[in-house]
Amino acid sequence: MRPPIAFSRLGYAYVLASCVLLLTGGCATVQTDPLSAWNDGKVKQEIVSFVAKVTTQGSPDYVPVPERIATFDNDGTLWAEQPMYFQLIFALDRVKALAPQHPEWKDKEPFASLLKGDVKGALAGGEKAIVEILRTTHTGMTNAEFEAIVREWVATTKHPRFGELYTSMVYQPMLELVAYLRANGFKTYIVSAGGIEFMRPWTERVYGIPPEQVIGSSIKTKFELRDGKPVLMRLPELNFIDEGAGKPVGINEHIGRRPIFAFGNSDGDLQMLQWTAAGAGVRLMGLVHHTDAVREWAYDRRSSVGKLDKALDEAQAKGWTVVDMKQDWKVIFPFEKK
Amino acid sequence: MRPPIAFSRLGYAYVLASCVLLLTGGCATVQTDPLSAWNDGKVKQEIVSFVAKVTTQGSPDYVPVPERIATFDNDGTLWAEQPMYFQLIFALDRVKALAPQHPEWKDKEPFASLLKGDVKGALAGGEKAIVEILRTTHTGMTNAEFEAIVREWVATTKHPRFGELYTSMVYQPMLELVAYLRANGFKTYIVSAGGIEFMRPWTERVYGIPPEQVIGSSIKTKFELRDGKPVLMRLPELNFIDEGAGKPVGINEHIGRRPIFAFGNSDGDLQMLQWTAAGAGVRLMGLVHHTDAVREWAYDRRSSVGKLDKALDEAQAKGWTVVDMKQDWKVIFPFEKK
Repeated sequence: MRPPIAFSRLGYAYVLASCVLLLTGGCATVQTDPLSAWNDGKVKQEIVSFVAKVTTQGSPDYVPVPERIATFDNDGTLWAEQPMYFQLIFALDRVKALAPQHPEWKDKEPFASLLKGDVKGALAGGEKAIVEILRTTHTGMTNAEFEAIVREWVATTKHPRFGELYTSMVYQPMLELVAYLRANGFKTYIVSAGGIEFMRPWTERVYGIPPEQVIGSSIKTKFELRDGKPVLMRLPELNFIDEGAGKPVGINEHIGRRPIFAFGNSDGDLQMLQWTAAGAGVRLMGLVHHTDAVREWAYDRRSSVGKLDKALDEAQAKGWTVVDMKQDWKVIFPFEKK
Repeated sequence: MRPPIAFSRLGYAYVLASCVLLLTGGCATVQTDPLSAWNDGKVKQEIVSFVAKVTTQGSPDYVPVPERIATFDNDGTLWAEQPMYFQLIFALDRVKALAPQHPEWKDKEPFASLLKGDVKGALAGGEKAIVEILRTTHTGMTNAEFEAIVREWVATTKHPRFGELYTSMVYQPMLELVAYLRANGFKTYIVSAGGIEFMRPWTERVYGIPPEQVIGSSIKTKFELRDGKPVLMRLPELNFIDEGAGKPVGINEHIGRRPIFAFGNSDGDLQMLQWTAAGAGVRLMGLVHHTDAVREWAYDRRSSVGKLDKALDEAQAKGWTVVDMKQDWKVIFPFEKK
């Protein structure tokens, strides 16, 4: 269904109107800036101009509502990813929680190092160590059991630098951008290398993005009857890696339409941006460039987390939208406004 | 967003109202039966009563709009599946179309039999023969190329018995049911063993179900740059079989919520119905039983297509809704109304 009001003109007139109000005969309108955490400038202008073009009926660039698909990377794009990907922190926390049931871990890597507090030593085992940690902490239970564990963790665990819940470590300007697109008839999706079941328990509450619009990496699951009751068991086997060239594949599998708007922050998002750019008509491809070492972190080409190198070159060559976090964002995190 | 009007009371009052009408100040209401192709009786009553319960605010059975998920099998549930699954007919047509480029097929099964018009002989090779036919006809091209082939086929090819396009071989009562659920705030999904990319080019036009709400079997695809232009190549490798115990897995992967309403017609839908039934609160599990040899086809426990045996037993034991096509459907196909 079309939203009742198309928010389409340039400028920041934002009409707060709901169908309910219309039904009861009134229509409250409030002029306010839906992107108030963005500083005025080129990037904000590009976003507003793009939305105006695709939502203006009769414009040559008009895009019908069902085709207004926007995809967002999660780590480093919607929420922070330092000092390491939050799902990895979750996994390390789970190792500690499970350790009493696994006395053998005292002599087994990567667990032995981890339990001594030596994260670096544990991760020195590379991909093999990480897979072993994920297998132990993310599989061998039902999906419902895993969801409960994630819900508990995000409700209680705080970020070491900021002392806030991880779900508060989201970017205020991006929350506004996602809501702004939705108010303009877009369907907003997450397309993340993170685990699909790690994100779904909280993305609707935090971003307004429902579980059916979350695309992520996944392990295989198996339908079983346990005492006659159906469950989905989480198997120790990878199903899909939603990263790099996997992102267009995941987008096609889940959405079956090409986005007209996509935002990422690292080389793992490059193919999603290329796939978005390759469609007909106007489109917006964006990157969050982490340039603010004071309010957040500054990193790009040489970072082991969220490395941004090739995608930055391609963005500059092709005139994609590049957010300079330090310059473009008035506020980084919602809790700064407290 | 909530639909502007909740269609919630018992009976068939159906308000044809759109937001546009509301915005322009008028509101046309027409009393009509949204399920007019259904005969009055137990099954229709079960459906209407279920929808009334979950949409009535303040009812103990009320379900918020985002959780109103309905899933439908396709072959034999939304469209016909005789004399064989339509996608198999499509594949056989493609073999004939491709034969001039493959002189070697004259001596190679299953192609040799097929090209002589001996479908039964070709399919005598069992699963191996079918996989070979699908590999040849469904892979080795881009997704966009495959989509164009499907669009052409559904626009031109007619069913041997009825002389109608395959996309006209859909069940009028089920079209009404899908629309009725949507008008009541449900998100309607297809969950089919058929190929996801075989369905997506036409499900929105025919059922009002957009590509992102189609779940089906799939082959692996690969993102590639071809002369600098991104494409998704269709690989000769299975990705997922959305049948039987695969259906709850597919539902979880794509939707991440449990349906409260599900409809199928064969044993391949049993686990989807069990998964739906296992949630809390009221739910409706339904089966289309093909009982009308005159207007459609009559088949169940012994059929090689759409076999309905265990699921029928379980439906009867558990009091699920079973549609007797001959008794319950006033009209089968939309073209009967011509």
